[in-house]
Amino acid sequence: MQVFATPKLKHVDITSDFWKRYRELVVKEVLPYQWQVMNDEADIAIADDPQNNGQDKNSHAVANLKIAAGEMAGHHYGFPFQDTDVYKWLEAAAYSFSYQPNADLKTITDNLIELIAKAQDEDGYLSTYFQIDAPERKFKRLQQSHELYTMGHYIEAGVAYYQATGNQKALDIATRMADCIDRNFGLEEGKIPGYDGHPEIELALARLYEATDDQKYLDLAHYFLNQRGQDPAFFEKQIALDGDSVDRDLIPGMRDFTREYYLAGEPIADQKVPHGHAVRVVYLCTGMAYVARYTRDAALLAACDRFWNDIVKRQMYITGNIGQTTTGEAVTYDYDLPNDTDYGETCASVGMSFFAKQMLNIRAKGEYADVLEKELFNGAISGMALDGKHFFYVNPLEADPAASKGNPGKSHVLTHRADWFGCACCPANLARLITSVDQYLYTVTDDTILSHQFISNDAQFEDGVELNQSNNFPWNGEIHYDVKNPNGKSFKLGIRIPSWSKEFGLEINGEVKTLPVEDGFIYLDVSDKTVTIDLSLDMRVKFMRANNRDSADFGKVAIQRGPIVYAAEQADNKAPLWSYEVDTKTKPSYAYNADLLNGVGVVKVSADKVELDGTDADLYTEDNEQASEQVEMTLVPYYAWANREDGQMRVWLNK
Amino acid sequence: MQVFATPKLKHVDITSDFWKRYRELVVKEVLPYQWQVMNDEADIAIADDPQNNGQDKNSHAVANLKIAAGEMAGHHYGFPFQDTDVYKWLEAAAYSFSYQPNADLKTITDNLIELIAKAQDEDGYLSTYFQIDAPERKFKRLQQSHELYTMGHYIEAGVAYYQATGNQKALDIATRMADCIDRNFGLEEGKIPGYDGHPEIELALARLYEATDDQKYLDLAHYFLNQRGQDPAFFEKQIALDGDSVDRDLIPGMRDFTREYYLAGEPIADQKVPHGHAVRVVYLCTGMAYVARYTRDAALLAACDRFWNDIVKRQMYITGNIGQTTTGEAVTYDYDLPNDTDYGETCASVGMSFFAKQMLNIRAKGEYADVLEKELFNGAISGMALDGKHFFYVNPLEADPAASKGNPGKSHVLTHRADWFGCACCPANLARLITSVDQYLYTVTDDTILSHQFISNDAQFEDGVELNQSNNFPWNGEIHYDVKNPNGKSFKLGIRIPSWSKEFGLEINGEVKTLPVEDGFIYLDVSDKTVTIDLSLDMRVKFMRANNRDSADFGKVAIQRGPIVYAAEQADNKAPLWSYEVDTKTKPSYAYNADLLNGVGVVKVSADKVELDGTDADLYTEDNEQASEQVEMTLVPYYAWANREDGQMRVWLNK
Ligand SMILES: [Zn+2]
Ligand SMILES: [Zn+2]
Repeated sequence: MQVFATPKLKHVDITSDFWKRYRELVVKEVLPYQWQVMNDEADIAIADDPQNNGQDKNSHAVANLKIAAGEMAGHHYGFPFQDTDVYKWLEAAAYSFSYQPNADLKTITDNLIELIAKAQDEDGYLSTYFQIDAPERKFKRLQQSHELYTMGHYIEAGVAYYQATGNQKALDIATRMADCIDRNFGLEEGKIPGYDGHPEIELALARLYEATDDQKYLDLAHYFLNQRGQDPAFFEKQIALDGDSVDRDLIPGMRDFTREYYLAGEPIADQKVPHGHAVRVVYLCTGMAYVARYTRDAALLAACDRFWNDIVKRQMYITGNIGQTTTGEAVTYDYDLPNDTDYGETCASVGMSFFAKQMLNIRAKGEYADVLEKELFNGAISGMALDGKHFFYVNPLEADPAASKGNPGKSHVLTHRADWFGCACCPANLARLITSVDQYLYTVTDDTILSHQFISNDAQFEDGVELNQSNNFPWNGEIHYDVKNPNGKSFKLGIRIPSWSKEFGLEINGEVKTLPVEDGFIYLDVSDKTVTIDLSLDMRVKFMRANNRDSADFGKVAIQRGPIVYAAEQADNKAPLWSYEVDTKTKPSYAYNADLLNGVGVVKVSADKVELDGTDADLYTEDNEQASEQVEMTLVPYYAWANREDGQMRVWLNK
Repeated sequence: MQVFATPKLKHVDITSDFWKRYRELVVKEVLPYQWQVMNDEADIAIADDPQNNGQDKNSHAVANLKIAAGEMAGHHYGFPFQDTDVYKWLEAAAYSFSYQPNADLKTITDNLIELIAKAQDEDGYLSTYFQIDAPERKFKRLQQSHELYTMGHYIEAGVAYYQATGNQKALDIATRMADCIDRNFGLEEGKIPGYDGHPEIELALARLYEATDDQKYLDLAHYFLNQRGQDPAFFEKQIALDGDSVDRDLIPGMRDFTREYYLAGEPIADQKVPHGHAVRVVYLCTGMAYVARYTRDAALLAACDRFWNDIVKRQMYITGNIGQTTTGEAVTYDYDLPNDTDYGETCASVGMSFFAKQMLNIRAKGEYADVLEKELFNGAISGMALDGKHFFYVNPLEADPAASKGNPGKSHVLTHRADWFGCACCPANLARLITSVDQYLYTVTDDTILSHQFISNDAQFEDGVELNQSNNFPWNGEIHYDVKNPNGKSFKLGIRIPSWSKEFGLEINGEVKTLPVEDGFIYLDVSDKTVTIDLSLDMRVKFMRANNRDSADFGKVAIQRGPIVYAAEQADNKAPLWSYEVDTKTKPSYAYNADLLNGVGVVKVSADKVELDGTDADLYTEDNEQASEQVEMTLVPYYAWANREDGQMRVWLNK
């Protein structure tokens, strides 16, 4: 196994119009709005959220910290992990300073660090629910408590804030937290031989290790991964000691899920496929990959490969969404990919981006970057409306307002994005991905710079190396690079050839070149002081099909162009959308429309639209030729759906 | 509106091989087995039933009656409506005496009547849960109590037992019960201006009216129908008075359903389409039609027509199953007919047979008899295994053991019939339909005998009229009638032409005849002393399609021959079943196989079976021609599925 040194990338400026808009939107809309929400100053309609789990009042997230800090009186309100809303917001804000310094915002975040420091216990513990309302139950019901999950999110935020601003206190809070956890967990006498019901601390500790170089944190992360599932009854035993009565549960119903749901039914090395809660899966995988890289733990790496393979080849929607069922927000089983009842939580797509990034740090394999790109341009950003003010928790691939209203099995599927959620994990998670997207473009190893995303940017490396990538991606596939290498350094530059572009054109310094594709990358040896590269990707509109072991998509096609998966919406196509049969023999057309949905490439395909039967016609008749008319179907990018009037949407079309 | 007099049919002997087997099976297997279960003497595995609702112990149903009768000490166990298991069993047994007198069984049932009489309160009240454990709460929480539902089931059983055996006590219990209800319910001062959360008492009272000719019972039934929904807050008000705390609920979660779910959100006359719990819908409809016929209540009849039309044209599966969602065992909305998540409770198909029978009593319309036939040969009998010892509660049209195990949204779909259920409504409900199927063949009006089912039988009418119908239906469509009319009576004989047999041949006394089809019937004037009729039905195997407003079946075909809907099973066809594309241009073949599944007609259709992609193949690829081989697909009757090894099943096939 290859282990790479710390990347030597200095700074990336995103110049992509597409991403600059999103990144500015987060600063302009999401961060101020969420700050208001967390301070209970926003007028929000959580009660409309079918996922509110009874959390239908204000957020109270900042108030919880103030109470823990002794600045306010009162009880904790919200989920046991309510603090994480604040931390993910703080992390998103920290990243935003790299492209949009904002003194007012920084005053708020600096003050927030002070508040968090004040809320933290003497011994480093910080989880306001337990501090305020159940101090005697700390670390006693880890299946449900989310304490390490919560502190993990702070650690991520603290590291990010320290790295962005140099605020030492932000990092100190994190190390004190980690030290507290280290004192309490482990196999030594007197410590808790357990782990959290919701993975997150593993990846956070690995990140803290990177930031501090303190081996203790890597060891602790490794401990959590090795220990998981060693005693499959660990959670039940804790519950028996903490009080078996259901009214002692921290989140009702959580005890009903299986051990496998918590990925704790057996040691990770023995787990064949990921089970359970989709976000737990991808967070755990991210931690596994992070730690496997540093520890060279072969069993852990094998588990990363196994889980990656199963998710990507058998359990991921074409949009990158993950989690096929609303029951427990969970994955189900191989090739079970129902489009109208799926869950596809925004957080799971965000977490899958983390996992992909970590796998790229392990191996230069285009597949990881393909999935990362799929998430960035589809499954993850579909979580936010174009206005930056409305959010999806659930991302269906087929939606119908009548079904969401009329069939309880689909009531979790919203056909418009909501103001906010009772469980508000998704918006801030997406915000931190968007504000840090500059960290997802390159993977730098000892001798190679991998440029694996086609998001225009100017990147500065050590030794004066600069890469300027310019393009109008994802609408246009002409990718131009100017490489500046004033000191004539020798390095390899790997450029990804996406799996959707089997054919591509390449010119180096204006001359046509042919280079072999190795595991999804072409490699150039750079030593000249300047190099220009022109890559021309295959931007044909393609009819895609699913592996035919997937019954839900059997006989259907989805439309993709470049990385963008398309969707048909009722706003463009007369309902019902299932009455169209796409003609895959006729070439689709494509045109960019600057005036639609903030500017999108629009695809039109030819289709037969079957004439609808009458509502008083027999429900079942002998099969016969049905009248139809040839029509044009209009498709828009999946991420941009549900930004107009409510209506049907579908990604997979009949043919 | 036509109102018909009491049918003048005297006796029907079923001679059909198909139905004799079922009727003997109920006597031989179902009745003794269920008696054991209700007496807690059977070794059953209720805990395996995903519908057990926490009722995972023994039935205790007879014990509850014994405790109420003072013969045993202890508490009530089971649902508040546990008594109905006993009553439906008693009713099934009563009908069985008409074709298979059984002295041992009659000793048991006579003793049971004694026990029930003893359990009944002085004032006629009988609902053992309330008598034993909550006497102060009688009639105080009708949304959930099922008290009138429970007594309604006794009234049905008591009438049936009285009619079958002449046991006066059986009828007296029923009239005392009805009198008790009459004293307690109504708009008069001091009475409860309400109704039961679960309809049933309405049809039971109409039946008691027929048996006793006492107008009071019809009026009471009419009251319940008129009053329903007049005060939409009735249930909530009762709950507020009885105690609002959830631990006062008789069945957890029942308060969470809407008023519409209970068909009580507005007066029935104002309800446009049926909502809510499917069995409630069809029981209510049966009561409505029953009472509308006798009262000539035009608004009620209009509601019957509206509800019938909506169910049959927009919410019924091709197998006759009803109820598209497991959430609340409910109907959903027009044209929402998912095959893999449906509910299709056996009781709903049984209840739909009741409704159809009542509608036939109102109007001579073949559509009602078509639906009755559809239930009898498909949706209802699929509820019982061929061995008579295993039962379906849920009847899916598409099943996959992997999905039932792996996707929680399908965990209610069993792929094998269960021993028994925590809520054991279905087996006895089907048993009473099967033992009384002789009562479903004719509808006799003042001047017309309608023969609307092709179930071989010898029927005796008054005035010496006899109809002997012989055939090998449903496998063969040659229907022969010998009419004997020794006294030369004049009457019209209506014979149904099924909607699936637009073409048919007819010979009367050996001569080819052409008669017009009027609303699904042909009519002969009979006055000769003997008449022979030969009807030849269209038994072609047909590819059926659904109204294209139904998205789940769009582009798919189902196979039907005569009344029998077919299903493909993994036992005959290599999985996965979705990988077959049926060739509807090639004529299917049909052959009766006496050795398969107790003798069934087997259909074979030509299909392309797509070659499966590898499990390590990409999940999404550019659409291309897929390799396939031409194969023969074998289909068996839907009712007979899941009688061999566990496997996939589907009714709607890709084409
Ligand atoms: Zn989330
Ligand atoms: Zn039932």
